[in-house]
Parts: sequence; C-alpha cells; structure tokens
Amino acid sequence: MADFLTSQDEDFSKWYTEIVQKADLADYSPVRGSMVIKPYGYALWENIKGELDRRFKETGHVNAYFPLFIPMSFLEKEADHVEGFSPELAVVTVGGGKELEEPLVVRPTSETIIGHMYAKWVQSYRDLPLLINQWANVVRWEMRTRLFLRTMEFLWQEGHTAHATREEAVKETRRMLGVYTDFAIREAAIPVIPGRKSESEKFAGAVTSYTIEAMMKDSRALQSGTSHFLGQNFARAFDITFLDENNEQQYAWTTSWGLSTRMVGAVVMTHGDDQGLVLPPRLAPIQVVIVPIWRKDEEHAQVMGVAEQVERRLRAKGIRVEMDEREGLSPGWKFNDWEMRGVPVRVELGPRDIANRQVMLARRDVPGREGKVAVPMGELEDAVEELLADVQEGIYQKALDFRESHTWTVEEYGAFKEAVEEGFARAWWCGDPECEATIKDETKATIRCIPFDQPEGTGRCVRCGGPAEEMAVFARAY
Amino acid sequence: MADFLTSQDEDFSKWYTEIVQKADLADYSPVRGSMVIKPYGYALWENIKGELDRRFKETGHVNAYFPLFIPMSFLEKEADHVEGFSPELAVVTVGGGKELEEPLVVRPTSETIIGHMYAKWVQSYRDLPLLINQWANVVRWEMRTRLFLRTMEFLWQEGHTAHATREEAVKETRRMLGVYTDFAIREAAIPVIPGRKSESEKFAGAVTSYTIEAMMKDSRALQSGTSHFLGQNFARAFDITFLDENNEQQYAWTTSWGLSTRMVGAVVMTHGDDQGLVLPPRLAPIQVVIVPIWRKDEEHAQVMGVAEQVERRLRAKGIRVEMDEREGLSPGWKFNDWEMRGVPVRVELGPRDIANRQVMLARRDVPGREGKVAVPMGELEDAVEELLADVQEGIYQKALDFRESHTWTVEEYGAFKEAVEEGFARAWWCGDPECEATIKDETKATIRCIPFDQPEGTGRCVRCGGPAEEMAVFARAY
Repeated sequence: MADFLTSQDEDFSKWYTEIVQKADLADYSPVRGSMVIKPYGYALWENIKGELDRRFKETGHVNAYFPLFIPMSFLEKEADHVEGFSPELAVVTVGGGKELEEPLVVRPTSETIIGHMYAKWVQSYRDLPLLINQWANVVRWEMRTRLFLRTMEFLWQEGHTAHATREEAVKETRRMLGVYTDFAIREAAIPVIPGRKSESEKFAGAVTSYTIEAMMKDSRALQSGTSHFLGQNFARAFDITFLDENNEQQYAWTTSWGLSTRMVGAVVMTHGDDQGLVLPPRLAPIQVVIVPIWRKDEEHAQVMGVAEQVERRLRAKGIRVEMDEREGLSPGWKFNDWEMRGVPVRVELGPRDIANRQVMLARRDVPGREGKVAVPMGELEDAVEELLADVQEGIYQKALDFRESHTWTVEEYGAFKEAVEEGFARAWWCGDPECEATIKDETKATIRCIPFDQPEGTGRCVRCGGPAEEMAVFARAY
Repeated sequence: MADFLTSQDEDFSKWYTEIVQKADLADYSPVRGSMVIKPYGYALWENIKGELDRRFKETGHVNAYFPLFIPMSFLEKEADHVEGFSPELAVVTVGGGKELEEPLVVRPTSETIIGHMYAKWVQSYRDLPLLINQWANVVRWEMRTRLFLRTMEFLWQEGHTAHATREEAVKETRRMLGVYTDFAIREAAIPVIPGRKSESEKFAGAVTSYTIEAMMKDSRALQSGTSHFLGQNFARAFDITFLDENNEQQYAWTTSWGLSTRMVGAVVMTHGDDQGLVLPPRLAPIQVVIVPIWRKDEEHAQVMGVAEQVERRLRAKGIRVEMDEREGLSPGWKFNDWEMRGVPVRVELGPRDIANRQVMLARRDVPGREGKVAVPMGELEDAVEELLADVQEGIYQKALDFRESHTWTVEEYGAFKEAVEEGFARAWWCGDPECEATIKDETKATIRCIPFDQPEGTGRCVRCGGPAEEMAVFARAY
C-alpha cells in the first residue's frame, strides 16, 4: 500500500475519513454535505439491504414506493414532527420554470405522506395490519457532515405499519427492533445494546422510540437503527381511521422503523484497524481474494492454472471470490492492498504450495504468521468456509470484548465522568429530563438507551441521588 | 370482481388508468404528477430490477450511488443538455431554513454530476473503462402525466460508462441496447424493435441515441429503453481526460443508458385484456395462485390439506406461489380477482379433483375451458413449470402477431397516413429533419426508430420522394 493511513490512536476521526476514501467506499461530492457511494461501498450496502430485505419479507412485510416530494402543509399536521424536522428541510420552490404555489419538501422521512395514503387505503379492520417498507433516499440539511455517518442525503429503509390495536403496534415496534438487533449481531458482527430512548432523545412525533446502540473503536456510541411506536399521533393528524368489528370508527395505531447507510460507517468503525477495513464475511463484497505468487515466467502458467481451479471451486460453493491477476505489483503490496479493503480471507498460492498440494490461508482479523494456516488442496472448500465462519465469530467476540472492557457500571458522579471519557457508563437515572440535560451539559454524554436488560430492584440517580427505577447507558455519541 | 373495468375497445386510455389502480399497481399521490407505487406494482418492478441487475453485473458493470442534488451550473456546462432539460427542472432554493447561494437541481438524469466525478477518478488509460450503473429516482417536471408512463418522479437505472476509444464506447452503447432487447423479449415477453433515434428525437447531449420501441395494444408506440453514445461531449464539458499509453492527454468517450418504471406500463399495455392484467410468468410477483374449493364444512380440512401440499411442492421448485384462503368469497369471484391481477397460472382444487388425484390448471392467457387442463398430482411440478413456460412464450407470440398485423411497409404518403392511424408504418425516409417535422405536423406520427434491421438497397422518401437510404418506423407514440 503506497498510501499512508493515519493510525487509530493518533487520530481516529482522521483514520475514519481516510480509510473510507482509500478503500473506495465513498467520495466527497461537489454538493456540500452529499457523498458519492463508490462501487465497493455500494456493494457492501447491497449486501446489508439483501439481508434486511429478506428479514422484512420473512416477517410479512412488502415493499412499496412513495413520492420524494411532500407538500409543506403535510409536515405541519403533526406538531412535534414539524418542530423536529423543519430546521433540516430542503425545499423545492420552483418547478418547470415556475414558482410553486405550495413549496414541496424533499422527504426527510415519510410518515406524513404515507399517513395520507394510509388514510385512503384503510377503511375497515380487515385492511389491517398494513405492513409496508420503502427503500429510498432522504434529505436532511446537516451543517456538520461526515461520510456515511451524517450526510445531507442518505439511503435507508423506512418501514411504516398500521394496526388495529395498541398492543399489536407495540409488538411490531419491538419485533422490528429485534430484527435490527439480529441483523447487527449475526450479519454485521456488531454487538448492539437494544433499548428505549429517553423522552428527550425520541423521534419527533413518536410516543416511544427504541434503538440499537453500538460502541465504535474510539469508544463513542453510534445509534445504528431505530424503531418507533407512534401511538395514534399520525393517525389523528392524517385521519387514518377504520371501522372495527363492532362497526365503530377507530383511529389506527402506527409504527415506523429505519436503518440507513450509516450502518456502513458502523461496520468500518467497529472492526477496522490500522491496516484498514475489516469486513464481516457475511456482508463483505469480496469474501476471499486469491493472490497467485510466482517469480520465474515458467512458474506463471502453472500457478495461474491452479489458482483458477481454486477460484472455480470456491465460487461453486457460493463464496464471493476475487482473483488478483494484476501485473507488476509485488505479492506484499497486494496483501496490504486487500488488507486495507478488509477482505476476510486471503488465499496465497505459489510454486512451493503447489508442490506441497496445499494453499496458504490468511485471515484478515489476525495479523502476521499467527493468522496463517496451510491447508491441503483436498480440504479447500471446508477450510475456507470454516475460516469465514471463524472470522465472523472472531470479530464479533473482539468487538464485544472491547465494549465490555469499556463499559462501567457506576454509582458515583465522579466515576460516571471518568467512565464517559473512556466508554459507556451504566448508571441509575431518576427519569428527570433536567437531570439528563445537566449530565449532557457537564459531560457531553447523552442517554443512548434504557436497555431492555435491567438489573433487579431500584437505585439512586447517579447525578441527583433521587430514587431511580431504571438504569440507562450513557455515552458520548456520533 | 365486484368492480367494473372499462373495455379496451371502448376506451383504452381509461382501461389503462383503471386497471393500474384496480390491480393495485399504483395510486395517485397528493403531489401533482407523482404516483405511489403500491406493493403489487413494486414487486413487479423488483423482478424487473433483479433481471436487469443480473445482466448488468454479468456484463462487468458495478452499482454505485451519486447525489440527488446537482448544482445548476453543472447542467449549463453542456449546451444541448441544459437546453433539453431546463424546462423540466425541479429546483431547491431553500436548505436548512436559508436561501441557497446556488440553486440545486433535483436530478433529471445524472450525466453531469457523474461526469464531474469521473473527471476526478480517471487519470490514466488504466482507469478505463469505467462501467457504473445507478438505481435511483429522478424528477422531470411534466405537465401531462400518466401512471408509470409519464410521472414527475420515476424510478430507473442509469448506466454511465467511460472509455478510452470511440469504438469501445460505441460498442458499449450497442451492447447495452442489446441487453435491453434481450430483457424485453425474454423476461417481459415484449417484442421490441431496436434501432437508432433520428437527430430530432435523440437525447439532449448525445451524438447518437438508440432505443427499443414496443407496440401497445392500442397500436401506439412506447419507447421502452434507450442507450446513448455521448461521444466526447460530456468529457469536454467536465474535463474527463486521461493519459493514454503514449503518455498523451486524451478526452474519454462516454455512454449512458436507462430503463425506468415505464416498463411496468409497457407490460400492462402489451399483454393486458378486458379481464385485467396478463403478467409474463418470469416477472409476475405471483406466478401461481391456488384456489381451494369446497362446499361442505367436512370437505374444508381435506381440501386445505392437499392444497397446502401443492403449495409446498411448487414452492420447493422455486415457483412464486400464493394460496387464496380468503373466507366468504366464491371461487368464481376469486378466479376473476386473480385474473384481474394477471396471475399466469391458477390451480383449482376441489373434492372431486382430490378423489381423482388431480388438480385443474387454468392459464390466464387463454380464457374459458380451452385454457384449462386436468393434471395428475404426480405430474404437478412438471406440468406447472411447462405451463408457465407456455404462457411466457404464448403471450410473446401473441404480442408479436399483433404488432405484425398492425405494421405496414408503405411507399405512398396516402397509405402512410392510413397506416399510422392503425399502427406502425415502415417507410423510406430521406433523412431530412424538415420532412420528419412535416410528417409529424400532418399525421402526429414520429420516427420511433431507424431499425437495425434494414432492407437491401435504397428507395424514395415516403413524403418528399427524394432519395432515401434508410427505412424508418413511424408511429404515434406515448
């Protein structure tokens, strides 16, 4: 690798910005705050999409597509919603050369336009539940942007469901947070903490918001997916009513839930190291790279012959494999290059390996000799599949260990302040938004979530000492 | 089917608008000119996407994502391009509560922003070719809109490639038109005529535009996909240059090609009939629907048991199957309902069928008894697979026959005028844009394409009688 990569310890933020560009995940665009998702980054997003979409369909959801433009008046129908989003709006005022009578907002999220359509589609309890997801781009005018983590335009999915009862809508909200949790853990190898948002951190217009929170390698928190119970707020604002089984008019109960291209940033900052990306095998665009090695010309044909055989055998197993046939680059240079791109497993194959009827496998997550193993050609497929599973498990465990070693359960405010300098603080909280605000002012830490996983009993608020019924996870966040 | 559907003969345009809504493909949105793509319509689009995306990847293309917003100044860099698109632009003038210094255009197509990025990414001939596709929404301010065919916002893919030589770019342009042709014929069962656009009909900024043109059931033409050779026009406008093998600075040669949700409209208007949609099996969201039939309660469990077995067996073959378990609806009502939705094959299963160890298969494209066949349970999978293939082939053939019986090769202007009242006219054309314009004024017919498939020799222009080297296909178009 010719290019220099800043080390994580030196400047994590700089490391992040560099690796996202060097590994060809994304590039800056000429429009302030917008990014270009480059093919390698988009392939990662396609794999994320694929795994999520499969889960949505398995849980009975269907995809649809709603308009990009929303009349400004729609946003104003839900008071909290417009208050939350109006500072972030991009507004179309001219169309087809003419000033518009009513400005159109470029969707920052679609509860309002979808609420309008649901009011039209839902008449009877028989029309419920309505379980629809949309893959789309959204725009939120951001002043401080960062590739993948916070951009003016981003790609996401937004699920929007309507139900006949409160219980069913609450269950759906929690179920979809469960889908996100399962996705994050199994596919992205990111240990996340699922829980409830505090009142001050919830979605504009929600009754209750749920979140999965992940710890990045600089020990800051990243909100990685959210699911909202909207109660009847949007149903009342948009008149989503239905006749129930007793022929009585009722407001529907709605939910929404979203996960975005921010997940790409989460993968980068959870697993990456000073050599570059470390991608989870289940999401990696390239799972295995083959680097053929030769010195003399007469070795070339022989090595390539076997390398192509290896490629075919792995591809036949459904493994996403790439052959590095580039000329004029040393094996060492290629190793570094593929390490930077985070390819989970590298197959090295030279004349000596061929003589010994073996290949060398190198795992990305364990550096140097320790991560290398010679495998007999006869065991190629099994060994590679096992190694991919090992890497997936290994990086998950490493991320979990990191989070656990950077999380402290604290009872005193002094210890709390120290903890949030270095990671997550688990602490009793009285539930008072003012206490929460004071903590934020004094420590820059916010309540990331009130985890579902709670200890027995009650305690004393870490700041005010008042009675507390729940523990919260506090951290500085992206 | 409780709802009344206007017949095609009575009012084709009304039939179209009705069936698109009744079959739940799309709905009008509150924003003028925008539509909502409903789950059934979106599932059809997902299948179109899947088949195209597979072909793009097989031909070496990768996906990426470029920003929605484009600085107004970018469009102005290519004179023809801005002239063509400026009447159709939606413009963002306010962002984050502030008036923008430079207005942002919501992309009507992405040659300009992608050209800007390519200039950054391409340095050397080694960086070429660049073969990138994008799945995205685009906005063109349309005054006369129609669901799927012409909407202010639509979904599409736009491929953008850059090459070192003119020859390679021309080859790519033609290759991708070939991909569209293959897709239309094999997947959508739409016979299309591939050819070149005349100068007056080409894309704003292109050197040459190619198109696939289809005939709808009202005998009007629908442009269904286009591929453009852009020469060095955008390379010069955006400074996409590279050092060639002799270390000399050169402008790249670029192409672009797109196919949109309009294809959904093409499928509807090519195959639909007075009973509703007729979907090509290879794209149909539901390929087979099972309608269990019973009268007495004691028959219910038995019929459902066998029906579920049928469902499992077909699903195991990868067939997209749906069971209609709805209560309180007669079999006849259900048959009509699924016919309206265009499901290619229906499985009917009642007590008598079970006694005879058979199922009844009904094909959507052949009405009444003639389209029904009893099949022994042991041959279920093979029979269904064969029938799906037959329907696919059958509706293609029917569409081809329709087009051929509505296409006339004409030499006199009188016969020409009659032909374009009823369908396509193939006629010699002198190549003069004025002649083309006169024909359009006098007959409302435009040159749909100059087909690749040309007769030997030369002729006399159908309007002016001047010498003509090419035959063109003329028609009234959507």
